[in-house]
Amino acid sequence: MGRTTDNAVTKTDQTQSALLSKAELRQRLQHVGEAMYHHQHPFHLQMHAGQLTRGQMQAWVLNRYYYQSRIPIKDAIILSKSEDVAFRRAWRKRIIDHDGDTGVGGIEKWLQLAQAAGLDRDYVISTHAILPGVRYAVDAYIDLVTNSSLLEAVSSSLTELFAGQLIALRMDALAKHYPWLQNGLAYFQGRLTQAPEDAAFAFDYAAEHATNPHLQSLVVRSLERKCALLWAQLDALQYCYVEPGSLPPQPDVFRPEPS
Amino acid sequence: MGRTTDNAVTKTDQTQSALLSKAELRQRLQHVGEAMYHHQHPFHLQMHAGQLTRGQMQAWVLNRYYYQSRIPIKDAIILSKSEDVAFRRAWRKRIIDHDGDTGVGGIEKWLQLAQAAGLDRDYVISTHAILPGVRYAVDAYIDLVTNSSLLEAVSSSLTELFAGQLIALRMDALAKHYPWLQNGLAYFQGRLTQAPEDAAFAFDYAAEHATNPHLQSLVVRSLERKCALLWAQLDALQYCYVEPGSLPPQPDVFRPEPS
Repeated sequence: MGRTTDNAVTKTDQTQSALLSKAELRQRLQHVGEAMYHHQHPFHLQMHAGQLTRGQMQAWVLNRYYYQSRIPIKDAIILSKSEDVAFRRAWRKRIIDHDGDTGVGGIEKWLQLAQAAGLDRDYVISTHAILPGVRYAVDAYIDLVTNSSLLEAVSSSLTELFAGQLIALRMDALAKHYPWLQNGLAYFQGRLTQAPEDAAFAFDYAAEHATNPHLQSLVVRSLERKCALLWAQLDALQYCYVEPGSLPPQPDVFRPEPS
Repeated sequence: MGRTTDNAVTKTDQTQSALLSKAELRQRLQHVGEAMYHHQHPFHLQMHAGQLTRGQMQAWVLNRYYYQSRIPIKDAIILSKSEDVAFRRAWRKRIIDHDGDTGVGGIEKWLQLAQAAGLDRDYVISTHAILPGVRYAVDAYIDLVTNSSLLEAVSSSLTELFAGQLIALRMDALAKHYPWLQNGLAYFQGRLTQAPEDAAFAFDYAAEHATNPHLQSLVVRSLERKCALLWAQLDALQYCYVEPGSLPPQPDVFRPEPS
């Protein structure tokens, strides 16, 4: 919603006074990532320490599918905001990466992960069983790219600056602690190379187009907002499935089998 | 988002086979309320049992302000969907109730509650400090009324069928357990009469306009979706402020003083 977007942008839009150099902008974004990216979320910490049950891992894979399923949609919205052929040619790579081409795309690979986790493919695709809180946070991502400028929409993808390290850590942790997932890790393998490429492009774009301190502030703010909606997805998972483990009353929400 | 709305409606749109009578429709909606309305949420149960700290109550008042602030906006969207003068004349009462007329409106009364709770008025109005998860759930309400039919948008307000009882219970509990709030209870006093009036109008409208089983299913589904987004707001509050009490990393989120 435009109302909310404007509101949210205005509220912490503390425009810095001086234009940051490209290196300084990168450092500023790195600080945001260190403080707010979801690599530090309790759900991820417990996942990587091998402390989650099979049912909790299923809940994560199932709910996270909704996020995966929205990625090409948000990238198509971003594509639609650009009048620059070269930008659109570059950005469409992301849609191809997720929807697939001659090879299998990221969404299909996530479904392989879901099947390795013992979930029914059609059940996952239906998104019947995801948590409302996860749905709202992911839809907030679509709202963000829909109702902001191209620069802000591109900047919301800058979480990929931090994704490579998290994915590498996760692949090790999943293979070690949850070996029954081992046939489903192709998604992460693909993202190991895709995420840094995508991050480099988005960062160069943001650095080039944020030509004054106000625009640089919007870049930072957009990254912060993206971090918040990733974090909130895990808050919902942690609350409903781990601690305290309190499910909402909707009967169709995923309920793990007793372990 | 239209995509999400369609998706969410389709997924549990189990159209019943026979048209319900008005009494049967009311009973069906009552069942939804008993199962899914947020009167049973752990946060409310603890609030009404007097188990929340002053800081937790402040977090509730502060975050709930965002919901209050969106009510006239969602009612204006509903108004904008109707081509019927009589409907618009009736529905505008809600906007007046919340924004005020010769008297003080519901939003101002909520600010009185916030001030009684020891919160700064401008801090509350800014919505800087609310939880991202609460923002997303409330924005999902705006999305719901924006992207659905007038019938569904009206039906999303049917939670008011259950509000009267909850408000009466809450007024007793707040006066008993949180006496420092006593100068801020005018909002609830007003809602004691407004909510049943509003509910009666919305129910009559839904019963009259849901002229086939499919439309009746949409009425029920809209109420379910509204219940889900009310519940999710309390999930975020409970997780972040009560159990386990794990705040997101955004530095501007409300942090209660140690009690």
